[in-house]
Amino acid sequence: MSFLHVSRDGEIATAILSRGKVNALNEPMVEEITRSFEDLATDNEVKSIIFTGSGKFFSFGFDVPEFLNYSKSDFIRYLEKFTNFYTYLFLFPKPIVAALNGHTIAGGCMLATACDFRLMVTGKAKIALNEITFGSAVLAGSVEMLKYCVGSRNAQSILYNGTMYSAEEAFELGLVDQVSSADALAEDARKVAQEFAKKNSSAFRCTKHLLRKSASEEMIKREKDAILDFVDIWYSEQTWENLKAIKIY
Amino acid sequence: MSFLHVSRDGEIATAILSRGKVNALNEPMVEEITRSFEDLATDNEVKSIIFTGSGKFFSFGFDVPEFLNYSKSDFIRYLEKFTNFYTYLFLFPKPIVAALNGHTIAGGCMLATACDFRLMVTGKAKIALNEITFGSAVLAGSVEMLKYCVGSRNAQSILYNGTMYSAEEAFELGLVDQVSSADALAEDARKVAQEFAKKNSSAFRCTKHLLRKSASEEMIKREKDAILDFVDIWYSEQTWENLKAIKIY
Amino acid sequence: MSFLHVSRDGEIATAILSRGKVNALNEPMVEEITRSFEDLATDNEVKSIIFTGSGKFFSFGFDVPEFLNYSKSDFIRYLEKFTNFYTYLFLFPKPIVAALNGHTIAGGCMLATACDFRLMVTGKAKIALNEITFGSAVLAGSVEMLKYCVGSRNAQSILYNGTMYSAEEAFELGLVDQVSSADALAEDARKVAQEFAKKNSSAFRCTKHLLRKSASEEMIKREKDAILDFVDIWYSEQTWENLKAIKIY
Repeated sequence: MSFLHVSRDGEIATAILSRGKVNALNEPMVEEITRSFEDLATDNEVKSIIFTGSGKFFSFGFDVPEFLNYSKSDFIRYLEKFTNFYTYLFLFPKPIVAALNGHTIAGGCMLATACDFRLMVTGKAKIALNEITFGSAVLAGSVEMLKYCVGSRNAQSILYNGTMYSAEEAFELGLVDQVSSADALAEDARKVAQEFAKKNSSAFRCTKHLLRKSASEEMIKREKDAILDFVDIWYSEQTWENLKAIKIY
Repeated sequence: MSFLHVSRDGEIATAILSRGKVNALNEPMVEEITRSFEDLATDNEVKSIIFTGSGKFFSFGFDVPEFLNYSKSDFIRYLEKFTNFYTYLFLFPKPIVAALNGHTIAGGCMLATACDFRLMVTGKAKIALNEITFGSAVLAGSVEMLKYCVGSRNAQSILYNGTMYSAEEAFELGLVDQVSSADALAEDARKVAQEFAKKNSSAFRCTKHLLRKSASEEMIKREKDAILDFVDIWYSEQTWENLKAIKIY
Repeated sequence: MSFLHVSRDGEIATAILSRGKVNALNEPMVEEITRSFEDLATDNEVKSIIFTGSGKFFSFGFDVPEFLNYSKSDFIRYLEKFTNFYTYLFLFPKPIVAALNGHTIAGGCMLATACDFRLMVTGKAKIALNEITFGSAVLAGSVEMLKYCVGSRNAQSILYNGTMYSAEEAFELGLVDQVSSADALAEDARKVAQEFAKKNSSAFRCTKHLLRKSASEEMIKREKDAILDFVDIWYSEQTWENLKAIKIY
């Protein structure tokens, strides 16, 4: 099992989402990513991390067809693991640079907003929190992270409309911090990660914590209830029909 | 008594403020609007609501001349009803599109900021939270809703200056989301309301709640004290002189 | 001892930081500024305050060479006084206009963000929260005030990079509200202070309080722990070497 390929070049680690063609998230994958990031947190040689995807997707988000076979309690357990992971990522003690190599959708976008900097490839790739377009709610932490990234006004617009944004549109909204060509993305991300790696690790960790602590407290405070609401809507008749129509392979 | 004309066209309800020439708010009007929105909340055929005004005003705000005849305890009771209503509106379970057909002042602007989307007519119409220009404080919830809409920096600027903004200026500040000509406003608002009506109702309600819950908690937490401070300043000698000079008919 | 020259012209007081060439902050200076602002708060003839510096600096920030001779407990006591002061300034009952006459660095920038309006001189002067560049953390209140001024996204960018910004760049970020030439700064600041002085004092104080109360609660809630983390990093080997290299006279 290897849904996250981790390599290291000097002080910079690169973690590549790798599952099928679209890097759709399921429970074993979230467990593996969590363990890998826990290892990166304690690896003293790693100063900053590039988080990217293989192929034409950063991540499609949840592996919907697979989850349709989960029981409700299994799905809740997955959601707890997923939200625990993005909360952990949001407060991760080292800088994480998201190199969005392709489509960054729903749960994939949630992971991206947890990072410290987002570069996105120009061209056909889209980024979205499009849950509302298929009748799904979102999760409490994802809303807080989005508000942290783009402010409450743009967060509301992004979530109410569920629009698929190009890199340029996402840059205008503050959802990504830099737009790169496909050829330049890896090198651009490396430069950003190198700048982060030069910073004093303790000062960075403490500053990040001060910036994000109040948002993370809101995330944690609201997530349990939000998961239950999310699940109720997920299993509702109308949403279920939409979910069954989603094909990812 | 009918200070709010409510009609329905398919899934879209339209609620029109209608009191005198300027739709100034008083206690019976706030009570009626509250009841009408409670009805809209439970009417299963209504998916989204357009909230607008008759004549050249969305709303002038409080009916100041009338309130000058209220006792202090009556005025406090009115303020409790008004702030309860805008808090209810801010968390309303269905999408509300404010079609600001004309001047949108003080308490009128507070109601507008509670909505999910604001279109404003171009031309002479102004929008303002101009309380400071006549020596009045504002209310706790109105500050939180304004910060939610435009961020704390623009909120501070709007409240410190009390400027009367054109639709274009308000758009720049993020206080309105779309500017329409007088001829196009109704149709533009209908299009926005139709887009909202297409969304899954449960997913919308849950997403809105996640976006707005922390702001609404601040609103509720601070409102009681804010009303007392507001009333102290309202009845102070200097402010009272300003209030007596306000004519609205 | 006079590290803050206070004068008054009509309803407007001017407070000028005056210590050495760079107005570096130490404990007696913070104590004196605190007492002076407490006097300004209760002086009924003062309606608004201009806060500026002498020479080519608004303030360099902490007097690092002096603090290297402090014991850890003395330094903690200083940090408590400094953070208490900026919290007091952030909620100060009268309008404070920061006229940033020159470099506004680190602790100097923290004081600036506590004010109600910032004008900055164009030219060579820089403004920065550059702590991360010499391996220092920041303080909890400074992060909350910065988020209040520029939003969380720009706050993160400013703190992660530690960039020295020109007045124009700072204006783009929302860190200053107006850019003035060196010749015009004093007069421009006076005009802004005069506009503030015209406002009803009680309405202003109450509105400011409503705008800033939630941020100030976060500041107070987190500061004690933040000071301890700040001190741990300050006395760490790598940061200490950087601090020893800082010359200010």
